[in-house]
Amino acid sequence: MDYQEQYQNYLAQAMAALEKACGCFLPEESEVCRAARYSLMGGGKRIRAVLVLSVCDMLGGSMQAAQQFAAAVEMLHCYSLIHDDLPCMDNDDLRRGRPSCHKAFSEATAMLAGDVLLTEAFETVANAPADASVCVQAARALGAGAGSRGMVYGQELDLKYEALAATEDQLRLIHRNKTGALINAAIQMGAAAAKADEAQCRALEQYAYGLGLVFQIVDDVLDVTSTPEQLGKPIGSDSENGKTTFVTLYGAEGAMKLAHDLNQETCTELHRNFGEKAAFLEQLAQQLLVRKN
Amino acid sequence: MDYQEQYQNYLAQAMAALEKACGCFLPEESEVCRAARYSLMGGGKRIRAVLVLSVCDMLGGSMQAAQQFAAAVEMLHCYSLIHDDLPCMDNDDLRRGRPSCHKAFSEATAMLAGDVLLTEAFETVANAPADASVCVQAARALGAGAGSRGMVYGQELDLKYEALAATEDQLRLIHRNKTGALINAAIQMGAAAAKADEAQCRALEQYAYGLGLVFQIVDDVLDVTSTPEQLGKPIGSDSENGKTTFVTLYGAEGAMKLAHDLNQETCTELHRNFGEKAAFLEQLAQQLLVRKN
Repeated sequence: MDYQEQYQNYLAQAMAALEKACGCFLPEESEVCRAARYSLMGGGKRIRAVLVLSVCDMLGGSMQAAQQFAAAVEMLHCYSLIHDDLPCMDNDDLRRGRPSCHKAFSEATAMLAGDVLLTEAFETVANAPADASVCVQAARALGAGAGSRGMVYGQELDLKYEALAATEDQLRLIHRNKTGALINAAIQMGAAAAKADEAQCRALEQYAYGLGLVFQIVDDVLDVTSTPEQLGKPIGSDSENGKTTFVTLYGAEGAMKLAHDLNQETCTELHRNFGEKAAFLEQLAQQLLVRKN
Repeated sequence: MDYQEQYQNYLAQAMAALEKACGCFLPEESEVCRAARYSLMGGGKRIRAVLVLSVCDMLGGSMQAAQQFAAAVEMLHCYSLIHDDLPCMDNDDLRRGRPSCHKAFSEATAMLAGDVLLTEAFETVANAPADASVCVQAARALGAGAGSRGMVYGQELDLKYEALAATEDQLRLIHRNKTGALINAAIQMGAAAAKADEAQCRALEQYAYGLGLVFQIVDDVLDVTSTPEQLGKPIGSDSENGKTTFVTLYGAEGAMKLAHDLNQETCTELHRNFGEKAAFLEQLAQQLLVRKN
């Protein structure tokens, strides 16, 4: 199977798992749950879900457990987008070309929809068809990535540095927490489903944070080089907001060179640890580097 | 040990567990975490924590695991209060006689503080010093009680019926979800720490929902019979908001009689199932019935 076929295969598994989780956890009679479904099923690349599945697959683990973890991490990611879009945060009216959750429903409903997705993400992990020790390991990874020493801390730093000039170190700290931590959680949940050992988990953590940083640098570049049509959202928003990005630090070309170099390092190291089996994860990193949206 | 001493003993265990969880999960350098601490350590009866501990104790389970579950359920309860107080929800400026979280900090910080507490509640459960199967059982109970078929559904119903007259059945459905479900989660987490069997869990569930309903009826009564000083918050808010309550349905005296009768039933049934060992839980129910705030 080539890379694209494999990606589509993982994506199909992820979507089936999400549909199932919706059926279990988001009853139709609730407006809040309809809002959660609206956002959860509203598209997206599903990178985090694909990472859970591909890491588990690479390590020869249980795909059934991984599918449920994949649904969980997408639910968690979706909650973070809903809360991030609220008026008291980024106040974004559009998400993936559609009205954001609080615009399609109401602020109260959107906030509760986010709360539901966060809660049910953990319940989905706890209910996965796997040994209890696997579920606990995955729940710890998700908690560590999503909470006060991970994603939420990143959101806080992001708000804080909106008004202040950030150095490269500060920018890296924001991205490490805001994006890297949940990508790492996804990857560690895939590793948990495969009962990976400590050394494998550490090697995968390096890949996760490398991937997350490159993803953000490319995001910064696309914000100045892409078109609204390609991107599905307005461009130039970073510089309008006076935000420090890798482009303001190094220019678009310099930032892209940095992304290339970092990606090379990340993939070389992954290959050193996992050999030919790492092919899919290397290609995924490469695709995220050359993406147009 | 008499009831009051025993309560203080459980409370001390709960507070120690909360302090420990704060140290682990709420780093001082984060404003969001300081906001979470502000609300989490801002008082309250800690009924849910005491329920986790007393149920586990009654069944002879591991108090170390129960202590950590007790901290988790208080973190989860606290998140729900912070989000409930936000302008897009109940818009309450005061909580336990102090500025509510978004007044003391900001809306964005308060929302993220709630998100952190919800996330860390599950991580606290996953990290409890207990068999993985016990942690998974507790996480399932917490998820079921807090999510789309529990507390958040109750909050949604509560907002919905603010504008509509509710029947007794609708009122019971609101309270069952908004209050009962998390009380039941606390109790089932205590049962999980003691590896309770199915029959014990079912008997405890009856007690949980009975206790939750009586708690709410008494709340309705206190809103019309208490003073702001006793209650620590403004009185008469329900009738001002035109809300249906057990008092609007049956008057204060009728509602109190109903609470007495329900409490009697609940305690009799608990005693039938657990005998003398149920003494503390029966007295707790009695105290909640005759409370003045």
